[in-house]
Amino acid sequence: MQSFSNSLFADAEASYEDARYVIFGVPYDGTTSYKPGTRAAPNAIRAISYNFEPFMPEYGIELTGVPFTDLGDIYPEVDPETVAAQVEDTVSMILADGKVPVMLGGEHSITIGAVRAAMPKWYVVCDAHLDFQEEYRGSRYNHDCVSARIHDLGIQNIIIIGARSGSKEEFEAAARHRVYTADEVHDRGIAAILDEVKAAIGDDPIYLSIDADAVDSCLTPGLGTPDPFGITHWDLRSIIRALAPRAVAFDYVEVLPNDSEQTAAVAAKMIREFIGSREYGLLKRA
Amino acid sequence: MQSFSNSLFADAEASYEDARYVIFGVPYDGTTSYKPGTRAAPNAIRAISYNFEPFMPEYGIELTGVPFTDLGDIYPEVDPETVAAQVEDTVSMILADGKVPVMLGGEHSITIGAVRAAMPKWYVVCDAHLDFQEEYRGSRYNHDCVSARIHDLGIQNIIIIGARSGSKEEFEAAARHRVYTADEVHDRGIAAILDEVKAAIGDDPIYLSIDADAVDSCLTPGLGTPDPFGITHWDLRSIIRALAPRAVAFDYVEVLPNDSEQTAAVAAKMIREFIGSREYGLLKRA
Amino acid sequence: MQSFSNSLFADAEASYEDARYVIFGVPYDGTTSYKPGTRAAPNAIRAISYNFEPFMPEYGIELTGVPFTDLGDIYPEVDPETVAAQVEDTVSMILADGKVPVMLGGEHSITIGAVRAAMPKWYVVCDAHLDFQEEYRGSRYNHDCVSARIHDLGIQNIIIIGARSGSKEEFEAAARHRVYTADEVHDRGIAAILDEVKAAIGDDPIYLSIDADAVDSCLTPGLGTPDPFGITHWDLRSIIRALAPRAVAFDYVEVLPNDSEQTAAVAAKMIREFIGSREYGLLKRA
Amino acid sequence: MQSFSNSLFADAEASYEDARYVIFGVPYDGTTSYKPGTRAAPNAIRAISYNFEPFMPEYGIELTGVPFTDLGDIYPEVDPETVAAQVEDTVSMILADGKVPVMLGGEHSITIGAVRAAMPKWYVVCDAHLDFQEEYRGSRYNHDCVSARIHDLGIQNIIIIGARSGSKEEFEAAARHRVYTADEVHDRGIAAILDEVKAAIGDDPIYLSIDADAVDSCLTPGLGTPDPFGITHWDLRSIIRALAPRAVAFDYVEVLPNDSEQTAAVAAKMIREFIGSREYGLLKRA
Amino acid sequence: MQSFSNSLFADAEASYEDARYVIFGVPYDGTTSYKPGTRAAPNAIRAISYNFEPFMPEYGIELTGVPFTDLGDIYPEVDPETVAAQVEDTVSMILADGKVPVMLGGEHSITIGAVRAAMPKWYVVCDAHLDFQEEYRGSRYNHDCVSARIHDLGIQNIIIIGARSGSKEEFEAAARHRVYTADEVHDRGIAAILDEVKAAIGDDPIYLSIDADAVDSCLTPGLGTPDPFGITHWDLRSIIRALAPRAVAFDYVEVLPNDSEQTAAVAAKMIREFIGSREYGLLKRA
Amino acid sequence: MQSFSNSLFADAEASYEDARYVIFGVPYDGTTSYKPGTRAAPNAIRAISYNFEPFMPEYGIELTGVPFTDLGDIYPEVDPETVAAQVEDTVSMILADGKVPVMLGGEHSITIGAVRAAMPKWYVVCDAHLDFQEEYRGSRYNHDCVSARIHDLGIQNIIIIGARSGSKEEFEAAARHRVYTADEVHDRGIAAILDEVKAAIGDDPIYLSIDADAVDSCLTPGLGTPDPFGITHWDLRSIIRALAPRAVAFDYVEVLPNDSEQTAAVAAKMIREFIGSREYGLLKRA
Ligand SMILES: [Mn+2]
Ligand SMILES: [Mn+2]
Ligand SMILES: [Mn+2]
Ligand SMILES: [Mn+2]
Ligand SMILES: [Mn+2]
Ligand SMILES: [Mn+2]
Ligand SMILES: [Mn+2]
Ligand SMILES: [Mn+2]
Ligand SMILES: [Mn+2]
Ligand SMILES: [Mn+2]
Ligand SMILES: [Mn+2]
Ligand SMILES: [Mn+2]
Repeated sequence: MQSFSNSLFADAEASYEDARYVIFGVPYDGTTSYKPGTRAAPNAIRAISYNFEPFMPEYGIELTGVPFTDLGDIYPEVDPETVAAQVEDTVSMILADGKVPVMLGGEHSITIGAVRAAMPKWYVVCDAHLDFQEEYRGSRYNHDCVSARIHDLGIQNIIIIGARSGSKEEFEAAARHRVYTADEVHDRGIAAILDEVKAAIGDDPIYLSIDADAVDSCLTPGLGTPDPFGITHWDLRSIIRALAPRAVAFDYVEVLPNDSEQTAAVAAKMIREFIGSREYGLLKRA
Repeated sequence: MQSFSNSLFADAEASYEDARYVIFGVPYDGTTSYKPGTRAAPNAIRAISYNFEPFMPEYGIELTGVPFTDLGDIYPEVDPETVAAQVEDTVSMILADGKVPVMLGGEHSITIGAVRAAMPKWYVVCDAHLDFQEEYRGSRYNHDCVSARIHDLGIQNIIIIGARSGSKEEFEAAARHRVYTADEVHDRGIAAILDEVKAAIGDDPIYLSIDADAVDSCLTPGLGTPDPFGITHWDLRSIIRALAPRAVAFDYVEVLPNDSEQTAAVAAKMIREFIGSREYGLLKRA
Repeated sequence: MQSFSNSLFADAEASYEDARYVIFGVPYDGTTSYKPGTRAAPNAIRAISYNFEPFMPEYGIELTGVPFTDLGDIYPEVDPETVAAQVEDTVSMILADGKVPVMLGGEHSITIGAVRAAMPKWYVVCDAHLDFQEEYRGSRYNHDCVSARIHDLGIQNIIIIGARSGSKEEFEAAARHRVYTADEVHDRGIAAILDEVKAAIGDDPIYLSIDADAVDSCLTPGLGTPDPFGITHWDLRSIIRALAPRAVAFDYVEVLPNDSEQTAAVAAKMIREFIGSREYGLLKRA
Repeated sequence: MQSFSNSLFADAEASYEDARYVIFGVPYDGTTSYKPGTRAAPNAIRAISYNFEPFMPEYGIELTGVPFTDLGDIYPEVDPETVAAQVEDTVSMILADGKVPVMLGGEHSITIGAVRAAMPKWYVVCDAHLDFQEEYRGSRYNHDCVSARIHDLGIQNIIIIGARSGSKEEFEAAARHRVYTADEVHDRGIAAILDEVKAAIGDDPIYLSIDADAVDSCLTPGLGTPDPFGITHWDLRSIIRALAPRAVAFDYVEVLPNDSEQTAAVAAKMIREFIGSREYGLLKRA
Repeated sequence: MQSFSNSLFADAEASYEDARYVIFGVPYDGTTSYKPGTRAAPNAIRAISYNFEPFMPEYGIELTGVPFTDLGDIYPEVDPETVAAQVEDTVSMILADGKVPVMLGGEHSITIGAVRAAMPKWYVVCDAHLDFQEEYRGSRYNHDCVSARIHDLGIQNIIIIGARSGSKEEFEAAARHRVYTADEVHDRGIAAILDEVKAAIGDDPIYLSIDADAVDSCLTPGLGTPDPFGITHWDLRSIIRALAPRAVAFDYVEVLPNDSEQTAAVAAKMIREFIGSREYGLLKRA
Repeated sequence: MQSFSNSLFADAEASYEDARYVIFGVPYDGTTSYKPGTRAAPNAIRAISYNFEPFMPEYGIELTGVPFTDLGDIYPEVDPETVAAQVEDTVSMILADGKVPVMLGGEHSITIGAVRAAMPKWYVVCDAHLDFQEEYRGSRYNHDCVSARIHDLGIQNIIIIGARSGSKEEFEAAARHRVYTADEVHDRGIAAILDEVKAAIGDDPIYLSIDADAVDSCLTPGLGTPDPFGITHWDLRSIIRALAPRAVAFDYVEVLPNDSEQTAAVAAKMIREFIGSREYGLLKRA
């Protein structure tokens, strides 16, 4: 008898029970200000995940040997605050079951619910935007308000890497936390910055959120709010390698698959990298 | 000195004060269930309006001789109920000033606010969908709930032309009104149906709403919820020609400009047709 | 707890055991002569199936009430003869289990294996092409050789509807069977032709294959070998309605999703139509 | 030894000396008012010509048996008047050699030079536009001025089929000739109109020009100035079949290949149809 | 009452009278040799300008605080020499009114008219191409002849940065001026080259022209004549930052928006950078 | 008389007899695992070759002065092993005639036949993939098996540059040869690696194969199996400049032209670079 495909993330073949990592998608783009379409990202990222081999030579790890699963997508409602609750639900369940959630956006507003479930000591985010708006287009759960809402949760430690866009008020609000602009990454090098970040964090648990527009839109143009003069995908890989072992939860958001798949390709590789480097880091530590 | 372009609807060169017709756009697509992107339609329709000559040979009318204006787009909020209020505001103003509003979607949910402002005796809509859902994805202002909300306003007379999609419950709800399915249009011919419709309406004022997906998606595929086996654009033109003189307000919604502009081309021509045939009809009557 | 999506055909929620219809995809396009890419069709057709409501008003049937399933895609090998064997395997299993296979191409060559499994009295195909080449580009399993291979299986009764392309030799080979050209459908009307076809077939079991390029490429351009001057999608719907109750197996092939989804939309609707009209026809007969 | 492809029109394998028909392309789009890109049409039409079989079942003719050639494209200059001279050069040469020119646009302005070379008794054109502007965007050789320039050449007999766009002045200028609007074709049927046209022409030589936008842009959207509510491609085929035997020269212009190739597919088929039906017509007459 | 959008460059909200910078577009692409479509660039650049915040953190400047305006587009004629005159008209007016013109192409040939109006001491251009052709495709105003025409105006000082393409004769003609090839920028670094350029220029007024194809087409592929192995967008930003304070006029040409908007995004950011860095530079100097 | 275009590689104007380099295309993509469409690459590369000037300033060489030709494309069969034989045929002929073959893919499997014809001492390949699968999707001539098949030919010396993807078994098989991963190129610099490679090769003849996916898919996304984190196009140029003088044959494969032509632009430039730098290197040596 023939075997048949599914359309979930490649190699995500564990059962939920056995899985150490749990992928799920949130095809939501209800508050996007510039271009809509990030709802198509979860399936675009899954599709291109089949373009890559299970073997990760950097770590000597076969992804097929790491137990992880992909639940598919939740069915998001229209209202972003409700979607945050749906996400919180799902992330809470995964964390309660002792697993690491890996959430695929959809737009960035979904991170609010995930952070609310995880309540980490640190929120580390790669983003072109500060996302420190109090409110935008009539909604406090707009994808431009993510950092502001996470600040409101009482998360004291927010680190933003790759920033280059925000209002004056947002830059002032963010100044109470740590902001490494894309220009600073470009000038000082990502290694020096990661040394600082790791020193600050110590062994604290972090939530790691990747807004895909942190990367320069000349390198990965498939974005809802594309911004040139960003960090490189090489920088992003360094960030994930450095921080994955400390992460209790992870998301990758804001991919808008309207290019030749290069942006989804980076996303899929970074999700593999998160799992692979975290496994490798924990292994080495053990 | 050179003259300079604007990007409004072609020939919409009257001032607001002088205008008999007032075009405005609502680039909103926050509740769309299948493909997002109808927010791009107002500008796509305006762009292709420049592809057509001011002269309408059917009527011997130069559009440049008809005073109409284009306000540009409103800035829609995130929440569809709020957007309905924004639209209601705008349509109320236009109607209060004794002008005919011509609204460019965006998604169909914006029609709710416009009908609330106009409170016509009849609501006539061309649509593949019944839009009689009580609620969808957690929202009563979803673009699948338009007819239901208009029914709730106390509008007793709803006529749906071109329908072919809905739940069992929606077909039951719609049965209290008049539904001409696309198959019926195909079989009986639009002329026979329009005779019935005109007889029913008499001289009552109507609101005329065109959901672009009424037309067969093999003819105009640029749609958020494309549906084949629809009415033709020729049928649609007949409908507009027959009903424009009775319309106190008009909208054209649900264009998603992801094709080779044929769907926006039909939209732009139908907006011209609405204005041209209404002027011609009123002229003839006078 | 949230519920999660899968990416299979909408409403295909029965288990294999309970299913009366079994959908599966064959993402194979190894022999295509003009444009490649039909391998993307199964998932494109599944994606747009979610754009349609479960309720089919023509039949008063809820698709959720019809037990059918979707196995996902087989993993096709490189060689078309091997793929034919893979398909034969799968169709044989489904038929042996007393179910109706519904196969989504991929290219037309996959039909060879399915017909070999079904060995029907009649092979009825809608196609712009005769597919009566003995061999093409070095392969006897090319998608231009489907009818020839089925003839070789000893199937005596082949009916081709919508044909308009073939070599002189192919027209001679096809003349031993029945060919209704697209021009003939256009001139005589599909109803007259279906009367003849039904009279010829009687109560014999048939295999029904739809090569999507039977339909005029001005209506559905998303095709590997697009051909204008074809039958309409309305004709196609009439054909499926007329013949579904007699079909022991069904396939829909040669969609190449490079348009605005109108071609996949017709495909998804025709698969629903096959199931819905067959259920309705069997019900009525009972 | 392997054989190697060229990229000329399929089956155009005669030498220039032997050819009865001479295809050449004019990749010029310098005056286009709406969308540029018709320069890509000659190669797009050639590419899809390989999608069709040499055999034409309607005529029992193998195109490989008809001696025709394809010279490739001329190198057009920037200025449209100069391009007209380049075209005149080429068409004069072909006519002087007793062959039938088949010109692939590029934009419609190139027809001016071709008609100047042919100086036919009748100029028959299918077009959405009257092209009777005296001047446009500062140029008398704009693609909106074709009919006006041909009128200026002293061609007394101009027939425009499929028209639906022009200024008031253009409609007045065209009224001195014959205009069959697309609406008239739709209402009366193409057969009735062709009877009139053939009666008027008698046995006079004609120049036959097809502006691809004559066809409804819902059927063939790949156009520089797309216009819905046109004639169908079936109408166009009837026109070519009726008039090809009388044509001393032929062109097909204004295709802009930005769709899924359906517009180029119709173009390629119509060029085959021109050759096939002309050969067949001459044969029958002989 | 709702407020309504316009479609001009974001934050260009000053009146012409108050404006220090005057944006206008020239949607002209009549002489392009490879791909047409740069006529769509002005509106594409305006559209993505709304993706960026008014605040520029590098300068602490709010763009809403800088008085600048956007006139919309001129209506270009067909002939490039005439278009040069139209541009000269407009730029002369703006300069006479003591403002800085910021012109959005369209193709590079429009720069000729602008330089003729400004008659600067230096012409500094970023370009992959030398544009030193005497004539091309029959026109001396071809976009390949820009530098040659500017040389003819008697501008003695031409600096070309990013060059990598030209005929032997063009390289010889350009050698009388200064050419920094993209390879030289790559090898020596842009800072060293800008030091030389600034030293040469001193405090002279310059015209600064950016042909978007100066940037490597792997980074910004949306170009009419894409060329890899160019300078980076980071280099381009350095150039604009260094030279904006000396510029009496500025243009950004040759964007062809057929990518995922990354090329228009860089253009919009560079126009902001021109204004922002010039304001900042003048402020600092003051 | 006008001159007419052909569609072959720009400046390839020598006769086969006179040519020192012989370009030919193999539009084959029958075994591709992820996205099909590389069959379109030969013509896409030829098209954009006209975007570049004949003059190569780095070498002071006019390409029109180097005798090279372009045969067009072979007509590939369906089966990859047969295609290998077709390619072997062609390459053998070219080599026997004392010329250098320059093959345009199509997919990588075509290299097998070319290497079989050339039987070089060294096989140097740029590739993201090791291509050391014994068999894939039922075929030993899959494009994932190229290196394995070349190893089987008895070629002892294989160098892979840019690798980052393969199974564990492939990495073991490749370890018997030399692999420079993309990360290693990124870290050590291409110059250091090329020094090693040149030292190893000495004056031996090599076959040089460029799989376009060696380059980072963020720079050149037009690929069948796009992979980020690759070498840059600048690295690739260095490789070709260093190794072209030693190459007896060359190919460029796996371009899939679905982007804004940047990937084909790099390919066309690299083919020019191969010819230009080889001519220059041989000249200098002489
Ligand atoms: Mn964000
Ligand atoms: Mn962001
Ligand atoms: Mn609706
Ligand atoms: Mn609808
Ligand atoms: Mn077929
Ligand atoms: Mn077919
Ligand atoms: Mn015309
Ligand atoms: Mn026209
Ligand atoms: Mn230039
Ligand atoms: Mn340039
Ligand atoms: Mn390879
Ligand atoms: Mn590869």
